[in-house]
Amino acid sequence: MRSTKKAVVLCSGGLDSSTILALAKKENYECYTLAFDYGQRHRSEIIAAKSISEELGAVDHKVIKLDLRAIGGSALTDDLIDVPQEMAEGIPVTYVPARNTVFLSIALGYAEVIKADSIFIGVNAVDYSGYPDCRPEYIEAFAKMSALATKDGVEGRPVEIKTPLINLSKSEIVTLGTELGVDYSKTVSCYQADEHGRACGCCDSCRLRKEGFLSAGLSDPTNYSASI
Amino acid sequence: MRSTKKAVVLCSGGLDSSTILALAKKENYECYTLAFDYGQRHRSEIIAAKSISEELGAVDHKVIKLDLRAIGGSALTDDLIDVPQEMAEGIPVTYVPARNTVFLSIALGYAEVIKADSIFIGVNAVDYSGYPDCRPEYIEAFAKMSALATKDGVEGRPVEIKTPLINLSKSEIVTLGTELGVDYSKTVSCYQADEHGRACGCCDSCRLRKEGFLSAGLSDPTNYSASI
Repeated sequence: MRSTKKAVVLCSGGLDSSTILALAKKENYECYTLAFDYGQRHRSEIIAAKSISEELGAVDHKVIKLDLRAIGGSALTDDLIDVPQEMAEGIPVTYVPARNTVFLSIALGYAEVIKADSIFIGVNAVDYSGYPDCRPEYIEAFAKMSALATKDGVEGRPVEIKTPLINLSKSEIVTLGTELGVDYSKTVSCYQADEHGRACGCCDSCRLRKEGFLSAGLSDPTNYSASI
Repeated sequence: MRSTKKAVVLCSGGLDSSTILALAKKENYECYTLAFDYGQRHRSEIIAAKSISEELGAVDHKVIKLDLRAIGGSALTDDLIDVPQEMAEGIPVTYVPARNTVFLSIALGYAEVIKADSIFIGVNAVDYSGYPDCRPEYIEAFAKMSALATKDGVEGRPVEIKTPLINLSKSEIVTLGTELGVDYSKTVSCYQADEHGRACGCCDSCRLRKEGFLSAGLSDPTNYSASI
């Protein structure tokens, strides 16, 4: 029997979202991946998102253009704010205001159009970078709002917001993804990866990723730039 | 004493959003208007939004590009779905899945960047077209979610979502706006306005607007196309 469950999977081309795509496939969802060309510094993630989506068997992959540079306010979308090389206390300057809310909202619209049952997002509240929109209470509130926002919700078929990584450590995530056959060498997590997708090795995102492989006792397949 | 209250005002160039801009100005907000170039049929509303923003004294006006045609699913963003000429029961095909959620989410990010106190949105639950994301319960849920989504929310300064028109009839809205000096001849509400901003006179949005002026006993300044 073939499943007809459908999922919109937010796929940034990074470690977490590649893992959730593999998970959604394992759970027999037909996967429709969404990436965002939002003016981010690390544009090689858009290329990685496409190749990972193809490799992991997504039915369709879309890149949505959205100019968040018009708003700015983050090291990722404003060239005047540098990406920090050291981890700091509190919410860092790489935080893009309301980014997950914007991405989830567009996924919500897409889910309604294709009649998807679920939206998968790779947020993580354990080894995260202090972003408010990665916490379980935020995701719950988004799900409640989305049930009231849409035609499907009003008609009693609200889309489910799935966050399978939310309580996992980075080490548990890479262990899970490795078991699922994710080729992490093709994923790009670095906030300032170069045009070949090579990681800097020192931004928050690179540090968390490195530590994940290290704690899991797995070799780190990340493509680092020559200077590391 | 000069107020330093700031508001992001979602401004589509239509009747409702022009009225809320005039209201926000009257309440001494510095207004930052946002319009969206989302691939809508009625592109003349983008021009109207700019001219109304200038006329009503917005401090800044931004047009955010966002390709909702990539998703489709609505008569407004998919050329294969016609705009109906008759009003129908239920949620109509002009409904753009999750549109208000997407617009409010981007406004939320912008509000955080410019440290705005409030977001104004001209949703209306009385003479509305059956859209789920115009109802008070939806707005309340969005506000709860946004308080958890952002740095400002986490730090105890959640942005307020203001919907001053939500319980007004179209007739009350045009009466209010007329008192506030809104020049409705410059606003475009029609779902399929032509390139000069001339309204069709028969889509849901035109019908509701026409009835509003009629019930208010005001002359209708709308620029209709010659065929009406």
